[in-house]
Amino acid sequence: MTETLSVAVERDIPFPPEKIWRALTQPHLIQEWLMKNDFAPVIGHQFKLRGDWGGVLDCEVLAIEPNKSLSYTWNHAHSDAAYDLQSVVTFTLTPTRTGTLLRVEQAGFKPDQKQAYGGAKLGWKQFLEKLQSLLAIEGEV
Amino acid sequence: MTETLSVAVERDIPFPPEKIWRALTQPHLIQEWLMKNDFAPVIGHQFKLRGDWGGVLDCEVLAIEPNKSLSYTWNHAHSDAAYDLQSVVTFTLTPTRTGTLLRVEQAGFKPDQKQAYGGAKLGWKQFLEKLQSLLAIEGEV
Repeated sequence: MTETLSVAVERDIPFPPEKIWRALTQPHLIQEWLMKNDFAPVIGHQFKLRGDWGGVLDCEVLAIEPNKSLSYTWNHAHSDAAYDLQSVVTFTLTPTRTGTLLRVEQAGFKPDQKQAYGGAKLGWKQFLEKLQSLLAIEGEV
Repeated sequence: MTETLSVAVERDIPFPPEKIWRALTQPHLIQEWLMKNDFAPVIGHQFKLRGDWGGVLDCEVLAIEPNKSLSYTWNHAHSDAAYDLQSVVTFTLTPTRTGTLLRVEQAGFKPDQKQAYGGAKLGWKQFLEKLQSLLAIEGEV
């Protein structure tokens, strides 16, 4: 058994789960706050997330519960084990009186991947900020 | 012989080449506008650029002419050829009356890598915007 590390980031967002769910599952919206992609909300669907600088993540949808939770693999293959990332990202949406508590957990960092682990925490905070900004400006999201 | 595509982005920056050069070659500054890294301004030095989401680029310094030009490989290994990027990035600094013309060229996109090619153009524009913002706020850069 291998010990792994998880990152979890939470954000209170003043919009209902249904609105956030669309931004998590529609490719043209995902692109605005995360990365270019060919996501589809279908269990088993394989897709890529592509950074503008040439980086690519290999992903596969693992679980979907509309407006509640979404889980997919978030893998980055690299010949150097320190950079070979095999992880799972899970979004969980919980309604609150003022909107939604959005939680993102990324699990699967190996103990020697402290740098990727630290980067992910910062990265998710930034991604969720962009997500909220997108929701705020897109009346029709 | 394989045909490859290049992306070139230019930006007029109201600072002298020496100041821009420091932001291109000092790791703690590179991190602010580009990515985390273990860069060193030494020909043959191998380093990584690490995105906060787990992506990693493999780089090697190819050429350095202080305050004038810098060139390094910008490779992203992937088992799928469409995402396997072997490229070279070259920064060129030309003094102008009001500052510096900074040119970035990324060469080596294969003809079937149109997506990475398009992403790089957008990516470099954003990186250079961040670079200029960094120079503007960091009096001591």
